[in-house]
Amino acid sequence: MSLIDNENIYTTPITTLGEFGLIDRLTKNFTPSNSKTVKAIGDDCAVIDRGDVFELLSTDMLVEGVHFDLAYVPLKHLGYKSIAVNVSDICAMNGKPTHVIISLAVSNRFSVEALEEFYLGVELACKKYNVDLAGGDTTSSTSGMVINVSVIGEVDKDKITYRNGANVNDLLVVTGDLGAAYFGLQVLQREKDIFKDNPKVQPDLSGHDYALSRQLKPEAPVKYLKILEELSIVPTSMIDISDGLSSEALHIAKSSKVSVCLHEEKIPIDYTIMNAGTEFKLNPISCALSGGEDYELLFTIDQKDYEKLKKDPDFTIVGYVSDPSEENSFIASDGSSHKLIAQGWDSTQD
Amino acid sequence: MSLIDNENIYTTPITTLGEFGLIDRLTKNFTPSNSKTVKAIGDDCAVIDRGDVFELLSTDMLVEGVHFDLAYVPLKHLGYKSIAVNVSDICAMNGKPTHVIISLAVSNRFSVEALEEFYLGVELACKKYNVDLAGGDTTSSTSGMVINVSVIGEVDKDKITYRNGANVNDLLVVTGDLGAAYFGLQVLQREKDIFKDNPKVQPDLSGHDYALSRQLKPEAPVKYLKILEELSIVPTSMIDISDGLSSEALHIAKSSKVSVCLHEEKIPIDYTIMNAGTEFKLNPISCALSGGEDYELLFTIDQKDYEKLKKDPDFTIVGYVSDPSEENSFIASDGSSHKLIAQGWDSTQD
Repeated sequence: MSLIDNENIYTTPITTLGEFGLIDRLTKNFTPSNSKTVKAIGDDCAVIDRGDVFELLSTDMLVEGVHFDLAYVPLKHLGYKSIAVNVSDICAMNGKPTHVIISLAVSNRFSVEALEEFYLGVELACKKYNVDLAGGDTTSSTSGMVINVSVIGEVDKDKITYRNGANVNDLLVVTGDLGAAYFGLQVLQREKDIFKDNPKVQPDLSGHDYALSRQLKPEAPVKYLKILEELSIVPTSMIDISDGLSSEALHIAKSSKVSVCLHEEKIPIDYTIMNAGTEFKLNPISCALSGGEDYELLFTIDQKDYEKLKKDPDFTIVGYVSDPSEENSFIASDGSSHKLIAQGWDSTQD
Repeated sequence: MSLIDNENIYTTPITTLGEFGLIDRLTKNFTPSNSKTVKAIGDDCAVIDRGDVFELLSTDMLVEGVHFDLAYVPLKHLGYKSIAVNVSDICAMNGKPTHVIISLAVSNRFSVEALEEFYLGVELACKKYNVDLAGGDTTSSTSGMVINVSVIGEVDKDKITYRNGANVNDLLVVTGDLGAAYFGLQVLQREKDIFKDNPKVQPDLSGHDYALSRQLKPEAPVKYLKILEELSIVPTSMIDISDGLSSEALHIAKSSKVSVCLHEEKIPIDYTIMNAGTEFKLNPISCALSGGEDYELLFTIDQKDYEKLKKDPDFTIVGYVSDPSEENSFIASDGSSHKLIAQGWDSTQD
């Protein structure tokens, strides 16, 4: 029932373009005109010149039923995570977060105390990451909960790290380990399904503490930036791993106009995830490549910096940057080479 | 069906506190710790010290079914309005907007072309207000459309205007005219209702161009700031009128620890709204006091500045600032005095 037709006269489904194709298409006519704009669209953060430093700016929207399920995510954890995932975008530019602003839409099924739980998590994260809550907007929603966080940060001008600085022969490095957050999601989903069938069965989450904490209370990768600073390493390019290693590696490749090569046997995966993979019929490598929500960093370094970090267990070399004439590739543990794609790798091809 | 209980163990309904009471309660534990934070929560924008200037920061979330109805709001207009209402918050601090970031959640009932229409409006507004689109987030929604815009701006340090600077005996001034946007909403709602009953009836929007344009394509009040600058007037306090004149006047009173007195006969209302009030059985003064979405400015000036703007038709003196020991009051056209409340005035009381 409409006086005007906003929806049906045009017909290209959003899904045909994918998230990044859609953004490219929607923003193609936008050209920055402000002299202080260093980078507008196309990296983890926008960059504004503030004289002595660069200001960083990013935003993330989290929608109930899409990004989180309140059947198993405690609101306090959700508040914490909303801040952490935004801080992660600041980290991806080698910056430090300073301020966040939060918009929240909730339906009247939420009580004041429920929102206080959410804000308790926000408060914990703000203290942990040393950011000020600088305002926001609280409004009604017709159905679920929608959270939007915008984050502001700063970075020294000679330390800023974009996606587009990777050079041929650079090494690809990841922090921490991968795949656990996605694995944690599967555990929670399984227990939800069991509960749905039989509400009397108590959830069995034992043995999955690490995966669950990575899913429910992820930390932004600030500690790794401190180590890099101590090691006097400025990455040539960097991105945070929110959508899975393969997707992020391809972003660096595309932005830097190079190719990337990942080695399966190098991908760091926690031993509990390796062991649990069988129980859940999940390939831990697939979780790492395309699971998402790890909030680790993927970065490239010049080979001359290799000696500085090779003994640090926080970092793992997972591959290298190759000539753009080569294909983005994935070398499996058996030595076979495959085309690297956003969803992992193309197993149909040698 | 939940493994945990996020919603039902606590019971205070959100509606018991109101929007501003809720925000006060949720943010009471947050204290800024960053030395550059000049103002965090509690004004139209947060304020960050950037050395030569103050940076301004604000955010607004617009939810389909709550803030807009796609049965009668064209997506292009919606895109434009999303930017304009955020720019209005920057204006309220006497600043100039520089950057916006947009988050958009849409369900798959929206086509690529529909989103392009929305972004066309965003583009027009960005050009009009000279702001750069500095990124965003595009994601799925389970039902309607949710838009979040964060805006960044700048203001000279000696020009910044807060809500809390009004002094006793200052004059209360509004820009433009009030009530038309709310009136426009009533016109659209009436036509939607008629259409619902009989889809063959063509919408009759004739004679309501002004009200409709104020509702569908509001402009941020940037032009008035230019005039104030030319007149060498820096308001002692300022706020943008998004929720109706009475509510905004009370915000200034509360923040500045003063009282306010509004005069009915001074409130500027466009003659087309005055005439149309009868047809719609609406009191135009009520539309101005509590209708909302006017995006004009309400500000206070020292009496010594009165001579500078008294002849300018862009500005109307609607009242004055009184001692906090007095009640916030509304003087009706018949000379009777009433208590000013957020929803207008208390007509039961003399």
